[in-house]
Amino acid sequence: MEGLLTRCRALSTLATCSHQLPRYVPHRHHHCAPERGQRLVLSRVFQPQNLREDQVLSLEGKSSDLTCKSQRLMLQVGLILPASPGCYHLMPYTVRAMEKLIRVIDQEMQAIGGQKINMPSLSPAELWQATSRWDLMGRELLRLKDRHGKDYCLGPTHEEAVTALVASQKKLSYKQLPLLLYQVTRKFRDEPRPRFGLLRGREFYMKDMYTFDSSPETAQQTYSLVCGAYCSLFDRLGLRWIKAQANVGSIGGTVSHEFQLPVDVGEDWLAICPSCHFSANTETLDLSQKNCPTCQGPLTETKGTEVGHTFYLGTKYSSIFNAQFTNVHGEPSLAEMGCYGLGVTRILAAAIEVLSTEDCIRWPSLLAPYQVCLIPPKKGSKEAAAIELMGHLYDDIVEAVPQLRGEVLLDDRTHLTIGNRLKDANKLGYPFVIIAGKRALEDPAHYEVWCQNTGEVAFLNKEGVMELLTHVQVI
Amino acid sequence: MEGLLTRCRALSTLATCSHQLPRYVPHRHHHCAPERGQRLVLSRVFQPQNLREDQVLSLEGKSSDLTCKSQRLMLQVGLILPASPGCYHLMPYTVRAMEKLIRVIDQEMQAIGGQKINMPSLSPAELWQATSRWDLMGRELLRLKDRHGKDYCLGPTHEEAVTALVASQKKLSYKQLPLLLYQVTRKFRDEPRPRFGLLRGREFYMKDMYTFDSSPETAQQTYSLVCGAYCSLFDRLGLRWIKAQANVGSIGGTVSHEFQLPVDVGEDWLAICPSCHFSANTETLDLSQKNCPTCQGPLTETKGTEVGHTFYLGTKYSSIFNAQFTNVHGEPSLAEMGCYGLGVTRILAAAIEVLSTEDCIRWPSLLAPYQVCLIPPKKGSKEAAAIELMGHLYDDIVEAVPQLRGEVLLDDRTHLTIGNRLKDANKLGYPFVIIAGKRALEDPAHYEVWCQNTGEVAFLNKEGVMELLTHVQVI
Repeated sequence: MEGLLTRCRALSTLATCSHQLPRYVPHRHHHCAPERGQRLVLSRVFQPQNLREDQVLSLEGKSSDLTCKSQRLMLQVGLILPASPGCYHLMPYTVRAMEKLIRVIDQEMQAIGGQKINMPSLSPAELWQATSRWDLMGRELLRLKDRHGKDYCLGPTHEEAVTALVASQKKLSYKQLPLLLYQVTRKFRDEPRPRFGLLRGREFYMKDMYTFDSSPETAQQTYSLVCGAYCSLFDRLGLRWIKAQANVGSIGGTVSHEFQLPVDVGEDWLAICPSCHFSANTETLDLSQKNCPTCQGPLTETKGTEVGHTFYLGTKYSSIFNAQFTNVHGEPSLAEMGCYGLGVTRILAAAIEVLSTEDCIRWPSLLAPYQVCLIPPKKGSKEAAAIELMGHLYDDIVEAVPQLRGEVLLDDRTHLTIGNRLKDANKLGYPFVIIAGKRALEDPAHYEVWCQNTGEVAFLNKEGVMELLTHVQVI
Repeated sequence: MEGLLTRCRALSTLATCSHQLPRYVPHRHHHCAPERGQRLVLSRVFQPQNLREDQVLSLEGKSSDLTCKSQRLMLQVGLILPASPGCYHLMPYTVRAMEKLIRVIDQEMQAIGGQKINMPSLSPAELWQATSRWDLMGRELLRLKDRHGKDYCLGPTHEEAVTALVASQKKLSYKQLPLLLYQVTRKFRDEPRPRFGLLRGREFYMKDMYTFDSSPETAQQTYSLVCGAYCSLFDRLGLRWIKAQANVGSIGGTVSHEFQLPVDVGEDWLAICPSCHFSANTETLDLSQKNCPTCQGPLTETKGTEVGHTFYLGTKYSSIFNAQFTNVHGEPSLAEMGCYGLGVTRILAAAIEVLSTEDCIRWPSLLAPYQVCLIPPKKGSKEAAAIELMGHLYDDIVEAVPQLRGEVLLDDRTHLTIGNRLKDANKLGYPFVIIAGKRALEDPAHYEVWCQNTGEVAFLNKEGVMELLTHVQVI
């Protein structure tokens, strides 16, 4: 064995690597931060190829189906491409935004003690038969047989799987509770009519958390804790949200809330009381109910799109799978459960839906795929001397503001006018666009800085640019 | 609308958040770094509950099926739990290690210009019928019908999907090539006999990259570039690898290599020439071939497990889907393609297979779920005064070595002896284990430091510990 290892070591040293890669300086940034002098340039990004085309295609059928702004804009700039009805390819900008969102979610879930796991999509029929959901879920469940004829579904949610998993832990003690397990994975749901792009798809990313507690009282505390983390998440994204009383649906349980973003294309109607905290999905209310059940004030209605859903489940699932722990008296006891979903791809689309104008995408600042876009002057223009200057500014920014490494994009399409490229940048919604126009040739050079999320424009010298960018939050 | 927004803002401020979460200091670390004073403690980790049990269960059947070390060890310490044959739940330690591996992969892929996308698992039958792989792949393909009776498979690989995607880009210019698109997603393959845990499963994570070039010559350069990135990746993980000439199988193309880790449970036989660079999967050689085809020296054989596979595809797929670009003469031309896979979950298991002893898991240092485990003395022991000291050491480490925030675990099971906990730590393979034993009560305190990957043990004072840990690479 030792001889083998020595030989392999020798082989690996000898093996032909035609390309010598630059070595990395150890760092903990997730995104690949290019070496100094290596600049991220827009002309090489696969993303925005459709940007200058007007034709937007939807596999979901006729263009009349493009009824929602986020879907139209995301297709138009090439953030998503249709693969099959309700299934989209996510293109590089979208993957970057989604990975950022997942990092925010990870922080919030881990801050309350969440532990990240990963459960398979292939879910054995027996689990679903045990809870009767194999029949109850009907045609929403995508089903298949393996080569041995065994039945599976593609998990739209994982109450069954996680409860069976926890039930298999025979030595679980009350001291280890509450247990908060979550995952961020693809989910599948055979929607009767997939639509609105990433808002209602058949394959989508979801964060699902499942909690296990030793008593109904602590389970209620855990429920509040997770709801608090959801509030914190949406606040950090700068999104206005409503936490509404909701139906438990096929998931079951006794208490449920939806986190809704108020938006015109929303598929839910919410009743809101302007004078107290109360808000509810109207399906939970009596049709005749016009007044707030808490303060009796008049209710107003608004449309919302659901981005999160929480359920207090009690022992509905733990009793079926016998998910027990040893209580303080040394006796086996059923765990009190909760489950909590966040639509990951849906939050991206919903955020774009609420923040964008009709023509221009706007992102929650934290999730923008790139924070800064630099636009040098057009080749052959009077300001062309500033093209090189912009390259240096790029290098200086990533040097002086390390968190922006990998976050600055140089729009090197210098055959286009500044105006045309600014139009594109406006459409894609980089939080900061920095232009080298006429005043870049002044001494000291001044750059035109667009803060797209606030609408402010300013002329700043290099120090001013650095000072501004130092404060950019990057996840 | 403005009124609505104002109301919603008010609502969101008012809404009951029973739990006030601590606000984050902005930082770019992926893992949730706890606040000072919040310590990660082992007793609350769901992971190692099976650690002190001897019984190891395998859904794949009898214990005789536990034929491989990595599967046995990973089940034993609760890194994975069986869900269905060939499908595993990944538990928190494993998810951490996998996310680190994905970050290394992202860095290597993006360093050569790779752009990350994300394609659906549901793959329409027509795509696979176009390449005849709907029939060729036979029972390895998991197939299903949606509610409208339309046929899909769960993608085991995405040549069809990505080629159709690129073909849909009608304005692709030679200037944008090479195009290197990759994803890290779950793949599905209905293995006739899933086994060896994560080494041969039915649902697994794979990194798959697809490249598009303007000529066979540049496509060959891209092929070398990606192979170089693979070499760099395995070198960074400290794994000894062999790049072997391989068959193209059902993927097709003209040139193919496998990246193999030499290991006893490997399912491939490799022929290696000790005197030159040559190595090949024996299936590519004539049965009678005993000498190296390049230098005529004698070939030796070794077993390997495949962790990466590269293919030069030519126009096999681009010609079917008409994936064209506009060449330098302004004419449409078929893209030259390559495809490149890395088994993500498989690399984890294979690394554990080659690095571990029969009883103790060892990780590539960069991928260890936690870098440091602190073991304070037993409650009630003579050294018990050092329990508090260990808490301070924890705080000092994450203060002085910021990249270790979220990487230090305190084994707070102080009802157990140091010896028992060290045995667990040894089994789980933290690169650094720091023990507060007798000498922790000396002035200055000395800690027993185990560097588990090198086998070294040393007594160090606080400064020595800090100096040692400063050099730990964390991704």
